[in-house]
Amino acid sequence: MKLARPLPHYLVQRYHGWKATTFAENRNWFRRLAEDGQRPRAMVITCCDSRVHATAIFGAESGEFFIHRNIANLVPPYAPDGEQHGTSAAIEYAVNALKVAHLVVMGHTNCGGVQGCHAMCSGHAPELEEKTSFVGRWMDILRPGYDRVVDFPLEEQIPELERQAVLVSLENLMTFPFIREKVEAEELALHGVMHDIAAGGLEQYDSAAGAFVQVL
Amino acid sequence: MKLARPLPHYLVQRYHGWKATTFAENRNWFRRLAEDGQRPRAMVITCCDSRVHATAIFGAESGEFFIHRNIANLVPPYAPDGEQHGTSAAIEYAVNALKVAHLVVMGHTNCGGVQGCHAMCSGHAPELEEKTSFVGRWMDILRPGYDRVVDFPLEEQIPELERQAVLVSLENLMTFPFIREKVEAEELALHGVMHDIAAGGLEQYDSAAGAFVQVL
Amino acid sequence: MKLARPLPHYLVQRYHGWKATTFAENRNWFRRLAEDGQRPRAMVITCCDSRVHATAIFGAESGEFFIHRNIANLVPPYAPDGEQHGTSAAIEYAVNALKVAHLVVMGHTNCGGVQGCHAMCSGHAPELEEKTSFVGRWMDILRPGYDRVVDFPLEEQIPELERQAVLVSLENLMTFPFIREKVEAEELALHGVMHDIAAGGLEQYDSAAGAFVQVL
Amino acid sequence: MKLARPLPHYLVQRYHGWKATTFAENRNWFRRLAEDGQRPRAMVITCCDSRVHATAIFGAESGEFFIHRNIANLVPPYAPDGEQHGTSAAIEYAVNALKVAHLVVMGHTNCGGVQGCHAMCSGHAPELEEKTSFVGRWMDILRPGYDRVVDFPLEEQIPELERQAVLVSLENLMTFPFIREKVEAEELALHGVMHDIAAGGLEQYDSAAGAFVQVL
Repeated sequence: MKLARPLPHYLVQRYHGWKATTFAENRNWFRRLAEDGQRPRAMVITCCDSRVHATAIFGAESGEFFIHRNIANLVPPYAPDGEQHGTSAAIEYAVNALKVAHLVVMGHTNCGGVQGCHAMCSGHAPELEEKTSFVGRWMDILRPGYDRVVDFPLEEQIPELERQAVLVSLENLMTFPFIREKVEAEELALHGVMHDIAAGGLEQYDSAAGAFVQVL
Repeated sequence: MKLARPLPHYLVQRYHGWKATTFAENRNWFRRLAEDGQRPRAMVITCCDSRVHATAIFGAESGEFFIHRNIANLVPPYAPDGEQHGTSAAIEYAVNALKVAHLVVMGHTNCGGVQGCHAMCSGHAPELEEKTSFVGRWMDILRPGYDRVVDFPLEEQIPELERQAVLVSLENLMTFPFIREKVEAEELALHGVMHDIAAGGLEQYDSAAGAFVQVL
Repeated sequence: MKLARPLPHYLVQRYHGWKATTFAENRNWFRRLAEDGQRPRAMVITCCDSRVHATAIFGAESGEFFIHRNIANLVPPYAPDGEQHGTSAAIEYAVNALKVAHLVVMGHTNCGGVQGCHAMCSGHAPELEEKTSFVGRWMDILRPGYDRVVDFPLEEQIPELERQAVLVSLENLMTFPFIREKVEAEELALHGVMHDIAAGGLEQYDSAAGAFVQVL
Repeated sequence: MKLARPLPHYLVQRYHGWKATTFAENRNWFRRLAEDGQRPRAMVITCCDSRVHATAIFGAESGEFFIHRNIANLVPPYAPDGEQHGTSAAIEYAVNALKVAHLVVMGHTNCGGVQGCHAMCSGHAPELEEKTSFVGRWMDILRPGYDRVVDFPLEEQIPELERQAVLVSLENLMTFPFIREKVEAEELALHGVMHDIAAGGLEQYDSAAGAFVQVL
């Protein structure tokens, strides 16, 4: 690897700041986490988006959340085909090896991935339909969600499609046999939440109501 | 989706705490981030591990880092085959749509995924070699790294394999044409770092030395 | 005191969250509690164990429970010998100064203190028998309970000893003259309960049945 | 034990409410905590006072804090004399068996125990000086603190004595050889904090300043 570059100095400075404060204050806890291994209570699947950090919103400390982040917080359907499925690998490890108690899918407003999916499905982004578009092929996971929102008024389609990114993922999670089994045995709880960046809001999916409702 | 459950109350409480403090203090900034979109300076690829949060170590605020997290912070080789590649999609979006200036791959000590890969490659984990093992197939990405460490003394193999998880990923990044092009045009800088959980340490890959060196 | 350290930042953040939500919503009540003093309805004696918080299980709000927590929720026999008895001091203050109406001793499953007592009494923990072992000397209080369970089948001994930690404590409470007097005058009610951590269960001691029965 | 009474119905009702909500939401986590044992990050020593619940102020969830509560959050000096020392037993278990990373002593305003100590030491509470007074003998631990505040203006003496209840306890903690050793090896951090009930405030002891300062 000949082309790696030194870290920008501002990151080095911040790291030293972290080490002299947060690390120093929690030295013994970090040593125990390293020696005894992690025992996270929840897995969180959320977007790569730089504006949405689950650790901040839920005040998660080191050791609490096992976090997978991908474009648009999507879970593909169960497909044990021998190919590389990074999301499915993360889920398998969290549920079967770490035995997390909760699996939270957190979507968010203003999601670029969801906007791209909407443009693609509505015929406005031919470049995303190309075989070579990684973002396009990834957003294919959300096509079933687009079909459910296409008859909504135009201005509601994208917000609804952001919610579908959570719902389709929850549905796909239930296609994994080891998840279905644990959910039905009440050994694992699934949760779907939506975060509103501008308003700092949080909704959660209420299965009885069949809708997202504000968290009270 | 009939089986979603309400969030555990402690998460709801913490969310309300976040909203009443961090969000309230930064309301205008969050509104701008929502309206104007994100403009992150760096993409960070790191592990799902609950003990390693790049936002903490690098003091990253909302809007700064576009973060992809998967098992063992791996990047697969470029493969525009029309299949779903979540990691490649995240990279494509960060580099081509968001035009990040830096791409940091951060590995860490005590990595369960790397330990599994070592067990699998050394013949001690047949269950990971099955076609249906998502973790096994994902860790196949690191097999070239195992080949480079197999002749090391046994006690050094896993620490070295953790470093290989960073190096193999950096090498694979360079197989993406749009990355190679930007790296060579000096429009994008790649960085490889290793975080030591117990010691709070940070090493970075020094291309000239051909080795990881402590960050000073 | 030269060695006190700043609180870890995550606790400071959580405190600020609490202040901005729970405290802000109940400001007037907290002020009254401070000005008029506490008037708790019950004293609860429970274990230090991090998995058993009486405030959660019984939904206790600020001002409701006067709570003493020690290893294995033990009460020593009345011993007005001029020595320091922290548990007896807490009881005296609750009963005579605060005039609580109820005194609840709550035991729990998976109690490390009880397990240590069992190991010590059955000859498997010589280190706990040393004069300098604070835990060992404290668990001496439960030796009379061990004598009652030693003839049970081995797998029942620890669960029964956990119940004895409640019963021996209730018996010892009755050796305090000011408690006996109030109990007999029906000015104070004693209660013994057992909490099952894994099952979320609750049993209470039924004097008529001479056994713990599930709370209905 | 012939005199145990059934729990008041309101507590039974609240327990059932907790079981149907908090427990049900966290069933799997509680099962894991029971099976794998607790691994608390911190021990908190705080008062029995019904108005001061560390779990609330610091948002502590099940499994996070090992909590000892006694009158006035006092720690006696190290005294391995073979007698029963409940506070020392709790500390020994937390530090040596559970290997907590932090030990927090939290005092509070309006502390009845501290007021009693002040009355006793200033000659206004002869009943507390009797050998048979458990509260009096327990508050003897704080007598060295009284000596440090007796020359302050009268209206400052009690608030200062409340702070001394934290400081004397921290000093006494350092007389335990296993604590001194771990503190000096940076394997255990001691913290002293003061909570103001009426104002919802929090101060922490700053060793460099030699004073309690507001938590920012």
